[in-house]
Amino acid sequence: MDELTRRQLIVAGGGSALGVALAGGGYALGHRDGEQSELASQQDTVSFHGLHQAGIVTPAQDRLVFGAFDLTAETAGEVRELLRAWTDAAVAMTAGHTVGPIPGPPESPPVDTGEAVGLPASQLTITFGLGASVFERNGEDRFGLAARRPALLAPLGALPGEQLEAQISEGDLCVQACANDPQVAFHAVRNLARLARGAASLRWAQLGFGRTSSTTSDQVTLRNLQGFKDGTNNLRGNDEQEMRKFVWVGPDEPQRWFRDGTYMVTRRIRMFIEAWDRDQLSDQERTIGRFKASGAPLTGHREHDPIDLSARTADGELVIPAKAHIRLASSSDNGGQRILRRGYSFTDGIDPVTGELDAGLFFVCFQRNPHTQFVAIQRRLGVSDGLNEYIQHRSSALFAIPPGSRPGGFVAQGLFSNT
Amino acid sequence: MDELTRRQLIVAGGGSALGVALAGGGYALGHRDGEQSELASQQDTVSFHGLHQAGIVTPAQDRLVFGAFDLTAETAGEVRELLRAWTDAAVAMTAGHTVGPIPGPPESPPVDTGEAVGLPASQLTITFGLGASVFERNGEDRFGLAARRPALLAPLGALPGEQLEAQISEGDLCVQACANDPQVAFHAVRNLARLARGAASLRWAQLGFGRTSSTTSDQVTLRNLQGFKDGTNNLRGNDEQEMRKFVWVGPDEPQRWFRDGTYMVTRRIRMFIEAWDRDQLSDQERTIGRFKASGAPLTGHREHDPIDLSARTADGELVIPAKAHIRLASSSDNGGQRILRRGYSFTDGIDPVTGELDAGLFFVCFQRNPHTQFVAIQRRLGVSDGLNEYIQHRSSALFAIPPGSRPGGFVAQGLFSNT
Repeated sequence: MDELTRRQLIVAGGGSALGVALAGGGYALGHRDGEQSELASQQDTVSFHGLHQAGIVTPAQDRLVFGAFDLTAETAGEVRELLRAWTDAAVAMTAGHTVGPIPGPPESPPVDTGEAVGLPASQLTITFGLGASVFERNGEDRFGLAARRPALLAPLGALPGEQLEAQISEGDLCVQACANDPQVAFHAVRNLARLARGAASLRWAQLGFGRTSSTTSDQVTLRNLQGFKDGTNNLRGNDEQEMRKFVWVGPDEPQRWFRDGTYMVTRRIRMFIEAWDRDQLSDQERTIGRFKASGAPLTGHREHDPIDLSARTADGELVIPAKAHIRLASSSDNGGQRILRRGYSFTDGIDPVTGELDAGLFFVCFQRNPHTQFVAIQRRLGVSDGLNEYIQHRSSALFAIPPGSRPGGFVAQGLFSNT
Repeated sequence: MDELTRRQLIVAGGGSALGVALAGGGYALGHRDGEQSELASQQDTVSFHGLHQAGIVTPAQDRLVFGAFDLTAETAGEVRELLRAWTDAAVAMTAGHTVGPIPGPPESPPVDTGEAVGLPASQLTITFGLGASVFERNGEDRFGLAARRPALLAPLGALPGEQLEAQISEGDLCVQACANDPQVAFHAVRNLARLARGAASLRWAQLGFGRTSSTTSDQVTLRNLQGFKDGTNNLRGNDEQEMRKFVWVGPDEPQRWFRDGTYMVTRRIRMFIEAWDRDQLSDQERTIGRFKASGAPLTGHREHDPIDLSARTADGELVIPAKAHIRLASSSDNGGQRILRRGYSFTDGIDPVTGELDAGLFFVCFQRNPHTQFVAIQRRLGVSDGLNEYIQHRSSALFAIPPGSRPGGFVAQGLFSNT
């Protein structure tokens, strides 16, 4: 046995065979104490394996910890071994296990950092991605992988209104850890960072404390920090036809290894919430194009009522104004383009420059073509969206999300065949 | 009706009397949709009122948002009115209500920012405190309140090993919001900051994503980011005798208005987790004085086994080393002094200087005498604790926590009588 479930560790009494096996050398195991009551939901695991990676169409969990990494590895072989080690650890952690035996030998550093011991799996998903810089950096083919670059993994280009901070943008690799317990998600990113030592180091990280987007049709739409329901018209991960149309990279992808993958865009969107909070309700509602309390479009009464972009008042004014966010973001005004969002609210204390709360939305979206989907939509929004007065995009990243892996394999394995 | 429970808002159908009453002007109310399933636990409120403030002996909730404020008010009357307004809002929010009607009049900014609409009360507690600077700043009696200063509300003084950042230390006022949903806690601090406009502004804020300390005897001990159970020997808020002995300010307090209050100390403790993670297990365990897996003292087998500080190995070595954290922190080695801890794990991204994770423990404790309790214990720890190699205190604050209020009253009301 080389790994324990976090629960097994806890429920293993000191006198059980398991307890004795691992308690050698004078090391006691955990005891149940009162933990049982906090471990009511043990069935809450999401399989790591599959045609696609988990954490994309998976019903959005409550909390996020996101990490972007810079590779310090110098060969494709080292990158491959990192992804293999990460995959093994992710398989263990998403199943509710530690990444190694606990307690482990006393004369070695613990293989698992331990803070998730006693916590349930919490529907943890871990999703890995590759940045364009893995394939080319400053014109250099760092790892000899340039010929295997996914076709659309090219810089998004400058977008209107953004004010990006390079040190919290992009990255060679990314790890998106979503879970219903933030400590479980934190534990995952931390232990992957630890396993990466010598091959990659954390470049930036972001904690998301509350989900906004629903990713399946049975999830309630929650509210973002502007107080509005966010993501009412999101794509739904349980609609396979829409996923094939908008999210999964299809058979037209020349890089065979990348088929069934997708592209992830992240944007750290700072909200100027103090300014927003001073705005009158009717202005807020015209800015979004929805009623705040119900989430209904201004042309409807219920959240999911259809949006009538052509409706006008008796005075001839558009009911949903020309600059309203939902008009500019609507697929009917964007050539039918849509994206699968998975956003989380964040707060990181006080902005030292303005003295205001540094808070907003860590926007994550998935699509099969970031340039005709996210970029096209954002280009319109960045120019005309009335919301721009109250938000600013401060970081940006694009990652190719490889397809899922099979038991015994590892993420992006196809990238390395014959290298 | 001037406030709605967040749930009432959601469950009020469009055609109900309540819905009609509030839907005037074309504003639709929220609908149930699928929300009901996420509102299973509606009874999870903690009363704001009582002899003592809530959030001290209350069983520790899962999440924390903490805010420290600088007063911009110029008179005691303005401070009093702020505390009155804050109390009214806290009473509403801890009961699961919004701070004002929703949707409210369209031509005004919304009174409530809205992001907690649809979320249950989540055992929200809001605890208010006053810093020493309310009573004296740079030798000046800013508000004419110096004569009413709680007897022990004096600076903690420099402590060994700390490296404090002034901009995230101290403050005139504090708000500790604890809840089982971080969005509910965030909403509370944000809306109180909003209500304070013109009288106080946020100085610093801290999100705590996971509780460590148990504050009652029926709470399981959770793990901090060093992977150890934290707070096994914490005082228990449901032990009234210990609370009177160690936490509540008693009849010896000359300021009558402050009796039944307490003192809060906060310390943002950065953990150097990369260095910690490289340390071997047996060193980690000797540093703490406990086994990592079980939480048992090195002289025991189970978490709650007694600590034997005099036990020696066959070689004559102390089993719990001289510099072990639990030895130096133990009440028997500190003249019997104890404190009630309520700490939370935090992470705030990457330290731009070191490139390491900026993560650790936001330590909060309550005691009736911060100088003979927290300071005396920390002075010993700061000098000798083996843990100092792996942690550093980066912020510090001391607040007088007034007693609880009664319905119709407000927090610290006694401070202002005859002013």
